Amino acid sequence: MSEKVRIALDAMGGDHGAAVPIAGADIALTRHPDTRFILYGDEAVVGPLLDARPALKAASRLIHTDVAIKMDEKPSQALRHGRWRSSMWLAIDAVKKGDADVVVSAGNTGALMAMSKFHLRMMPGVSRPALACLWPTLRGESVVLDVGASIGADAPHLAQLAVMGSAMASVVFDLDRPSVGLLNVGVEEVKGLEAIREAAQLLRNGAYGQIDFKGFVEGDDIGAGTVDVVVTEGFTGNIALKTAEGTAKQLASYLRSAMSRTLAAKIGYLFARQAFKTLKDKMDPRKVNGGVFLGLNGVVIKSHGGTDAEGFAAAVDLGYDMARYELLAKIGRTLGQSAPAAVAGEVAS
Amino acid sequence: MSEKVRIALDAMGGDHGAAVPIAGADIALTRHPDTRFILYGDEAVVGPLLDARPALKAASRLIHTDVAIKMDEKPSQALRHGRWRSSMWLAIDAVKKGDADVVVSAGNTGALMAMSKFHLRMMPGVSRPALACLWPTLRGESVVLDVGASIGADAPHLAQLAVMGSAMASVVFDLDRPSVGLLNVGVEEVKGLEAIREAAQLLRNGAYGQIDFKGFVEGDDIGAGTVDVVVTEGFTGNIALKTAEGTAKQLASYLRSAMSRTLAAKIGYLFARQAFKTLKDKMDPRKVNGGVFLGLNGVVIKSHGGTDAEGFAAAVDLGYDMARYELLAKIGRTLGQSAPAAVAGEVAS
Repeated sequence: MSEKVRIALDAMGGDHGAAVPIAGADIALTRHPDTRFILYGDEAVVGPLLDARPALKAASRLIHTDVAIKMDEKPSQALRHGRWRSSMWLAIDAVKKGDADVVVSAGNTGALMAMSKFHLRMMPGVSRPALACLWPTLRGESVVLDVGASIGADAPHLAQLAVMGSAMASVVFDLDRPSVGLLNVGVEEVKGLEAIREAAQLLRNGAYGQIDFKGFVEGDDIGAGTVDVVVTEGFTGNIALKTAEGTAKQLASYLRSAMSRTLAAKIGYLFARQAFKTLKDKMDPRKVNGGVFLGLNGVVIKSHGGTDAEGFAAAVDLGYDMARYELLAKIGRTLGQSAPAAVAGEVAS
Repeated sequence: MSEKVRIALDAMGGDHGAAVPIAGADIALTRHPDTRFILYGDEAVVGPLLDARPALKAASRLIHTDVAIKMDEKPSQALRHGRWRSSMWLAIDAVKKGDADVVVSAGNTGALMAMSKFHLRMMPGVSRPALACLWPTLRGESVVLDVGASIGADAPHLAQLAVMGSAMASVVFDLDRPSVGLLNVGVEEVKGLEAIREAAQLLRNGAYGQIDFKGFVEGDDIGAGTVDVVVTEGFTGNIALKTAEGTAKQLASYLRSAMSRTLAAKIGYLFARQAFKTLKDKMDPRKVNGGVFLGLNGVVIKSHGGTDAEGFAAAVDLGYDMARYELLAKIGRTLGQSAPAAVAGEVAS
């Protein structure tokens, strides 16, 4: 990696157009001045936004394209019309060619995944990509993956998720050996899916390198922060993530309505407003915005499409950390420790 | 059904022994005086508890047994040593023989499921049992199933879950045609599991009766209360339920710590304490205690093992509603509307 962290930005992605990525990059730059941006987008739109931000402009190169992937385009359509020339493709291409260390896009998730897979290809020893997120917990944050990149997982894929999640947690949380748990159900008569039991066996055997495997965890262990990395396949992970988001919204709504029901509650709210602000900050979903596509030959960060500048900046920060602390090299090293038979087996399968 | 609702209680189940079920039954009786209890348990333990509660004693019959299923017994062990004679078995047997309309137990979940399946058998047209729960939402409550009775589900099983959940919601929420959604993931490139798509087809076709099927819902729709019934297979449902519980605990902990950090916050808390009490009541997991095993020839209610009297009373209330409003007859009628081919197919499979 070069001395500066070089971030390729899809400046046209997201629900609100170029204004959010540009403003977000500007915020992230103040936190990490050793960042250089390559911005892909329509010069007529992005140029003026950049002119208004001299510091960002000085740290950026703008590459013009007038093709942008729509938020509702099907991945196959996006690949057909956007390959070689859309802002999303060009940002991915910058990583492919070694011009950038990481891509950040708030664009169409399916298109970003399809283009990244198509162009960057899978890392050796990894069969399918994963989407990882940072989950706020009572102990800080945990990495949870897969939260929706692919559905279903056999034991080797779950073990690969564990390896990739462990590498990501070591980068983001600065830990030597993050603890890793496999998400399972604890109901007595139900011993969990065969694939999960087999994956636990693989991880205990050290067939996938020396990760700190803690065994099974349950749904309530995620928010408790029992382990640094929670591993599950994409269907369950996506449902768990959205269920938690729904529960948080629900409780915030209960709290708002409780605090506005009586005069005493309203007075109480005034006294405690700083505490409520702290709480709101703590629950602010923008702070943990940004999923990471893992398993590709390149780091791709997906920001929520509907986020604002602060949220987009969090996604850029995440990309910065991934590049600065060499996520891909760590994943590669851990997979390199794997028993050759196990890796060969899963590559062949 | 007889005029009174007859509830068979496993008086020995739960983490805290007989005191909780007896005190819980006493509370539930004040709310539904037309209840009669048959209590199964150790006379030396239950007798004195009952003597202290004349109203409950008058409404109850106590059947002695000195065999109780331990909370950590494996289902197979429980079946071996507890069949014919444990308090749990005898309570189930009361429903089997028609002496009671519903069983309530706070005992070992796996054992309760195994014994219920073994003794009551599956309803015609249903292939596997399900565990349903009431989930508090922004719009009130929804029925969510399966939250852990069995793992994995093909399309006919998902459709059966929809029928059973719809019948339960019509009983508990007093609705003619509750709305039903299939839990799925919304990520663009991922169209959900094959079985879920096929189940949607079956439900749209009316192959499983005239339920009000609304299509797919996502994880955050559960807390939002988008539909009255959320259908998913047991692995994902169990993870979703526990993830939501974990998130609720986490936010309650954030709130507590925010409210005690500064003097102003503490003063605010004092003013708003009634509002916080309302909020706490709203979030009280005891209020929605009680899962229902569906699909058996009999209604079996599982209370949390660790609950207190108030929580156990909620489980008894749920059992009362199920019996009073004839859950099983409703499920049977809806499955009876099914296209004969579909039902025959699933019974044969």
